[in-house]
Amino acid sequence: MQRYKFILEYNGQPFVGWQRQRNGLSIQEVLENAIFSFCQYRSTVHGAGRTDAGVHALAQVAHCDLPYIFPEKKIYRALNSYLKPYPITILDVQSVDTSFHARFSAQERGYLYRIINRKTPLAIESGLAWLIHKPLDTLAMAEAACILVGKHDFSTFTHNQRGSSVRTLDTLTVVRYGELINITTRAHSFLHHQVRNMVGSLRLVGEKRWSSLDLERALLARNRRAGGPTAPAHGLYLTSVLYTRKQNIFSLEVGD
Amino acid sequence: MQRYKFILEYNGQPFVGWQRQRNGLSIQEVLENAIFSFCQYRSTVHGAGRTDAGVHALAQVAHCDLPYIFPEKKIYRALNSYLKPYPITILDVQSVDTSFHARFSAQERGYLYRIINRKTPLAIESGLAWLIHKPLDTLAMAEAACILVGKHDFSTFTHNQRGSSVRTLDTLTVVRYGELINITTRAHSFLHHQVRNMVGSLRLVGEKRWSSLDLERALLARNRRAGGPTAPAHGLYLTSVLYTRKQNIFSLEVGD
Repeated sequence: MQRYKFILEYNGQPFVGWQRQRNGLSIQEVLENAIFSFCQYRSTVHGAGRTDAGVHALAQVAHCDLPYIFPEKKIYRALNSYLKPYPITILDVQSVDTSFHARFSAQERGYLYRIINRKTPLAIESGLAWLIHKPLDTLAMAEAACILVGKHDFSTFTHNQRGSSVRTLDTLTVVRYGELINITTRAHSFLHHQVRNMVGSLRLVGEKRWSSLDLERALLARNRRAGGPTAPAHGLYLTSVLYTRKQNIFSLEVGD
Repeated sequence: MQRYKFILEYNGQPFVGWQRQRNGLSIQEVLENAIFSFCQYRSTVHGAGRTDAGVHALAQVAHCDLPYIFPEKKIYRALNSYLKPYPITILDVQSVDTSFHARFSAQERGYLYRIINRKTPLAIESGLAWLIHKPLDTLAMAEAACILVGKHDFSTFTHNQRGSSVRTLDTLTVVRYGELINITTRAHSFLHHQVRNMVGSLRLVGEKRWSSLDLERALLARNRRAGGPTAPAHGLYLTSVLYTRKQNIFSLEVGD
């Protein structure tokens, strides 16, 4: 068996999420079917982040084992060809040794949440950002975001967590570019819905319904009911998954 | 009669273009129908730029005459509501006097052409940029672009022009941001297909198939057959239309 690492871009809109489910098409299922079409082998694809329904990825990482050794370029071309009907694209393929696991070897995940802050509906970026009509104070949001950075119990920002709700947030930044607001965050790992719940609370700060202190109180309450509403899935992008140095190498030449 | 000026955003993908046509749905037709639904009056909508099939707009300008005086906010809300099924949105509505004509009063048009320069298919920005696989030398493109700036006969970059092909190009810039290449241009007016034909030729320069000198020779040939191929419509965005100072006022508060 040979293990392969994939870097993937996808538009989450038409899918029930990363993970295979009975009630609709998942990204995992589409990938596994493309792999089967390529080599007639049913391989399980493991993703670094199990993105929810509607969540996009600019650089999801996944791996699977195949029974033969194929040139990486051949896999890259064949899979992209089978994936053509779907908004999923393979950015890179690399052979890795079996010590690599897309999910368990990951050292850090990065997410981007895109808000478009204007009064009118979205004609071009519909489904690619969260439209918020009320003007948001991004400086207040950026300041409040600092409260969430660091090691905390994030129970306020997740649902039905089994195991510890303690996570360490490395960064959480809020930057405005005209009507676009980019919220970016990095951590070793996130709780379920954590990014969307943090964004939903930061929105309350931006709308002046919450102060920084209210956000701090919500965090300390360690109770989902103390948090703001969950931001919609379609504004969220998985942007990066980092591994140890050796495993990060991105073979830029593969698609040539 | 009262004249109204509109600023519009749209995704050109599902339309046959700005102008009403027999063979499919145009942006003009959708707008005229929305206006009819609002006030039971058949008004002709005049656009500043008659964008081709598939071309997008971030800020198209249009005007029409209505038989009654309505509050601008009311028109803004009603039309956006009737436009919901379509990727067209009204960014602004303003009453103007009858000396204003969206097309004939326009002093300058601005366009953006978006190229994504990478090897893999587009999962997220499909239909919103031109995907070019071969690495493009954007410095060479930026340098060559200067040849086209100024007053020239642009016959090489248009089809079946009636009247003069002389136009004055105020700016033409090529800037790379990672895999994204933005080509922006401004002029009082453009010939039919001019931006797409200039981009198609600049691509040849970026791929090193043409030198700057080849581009200059093509321009001087004043013959469409001397030019590069036409770049696809879906990378092109009408980004601005400027009027005399008074007419440029954008009533930012209307959507409140």
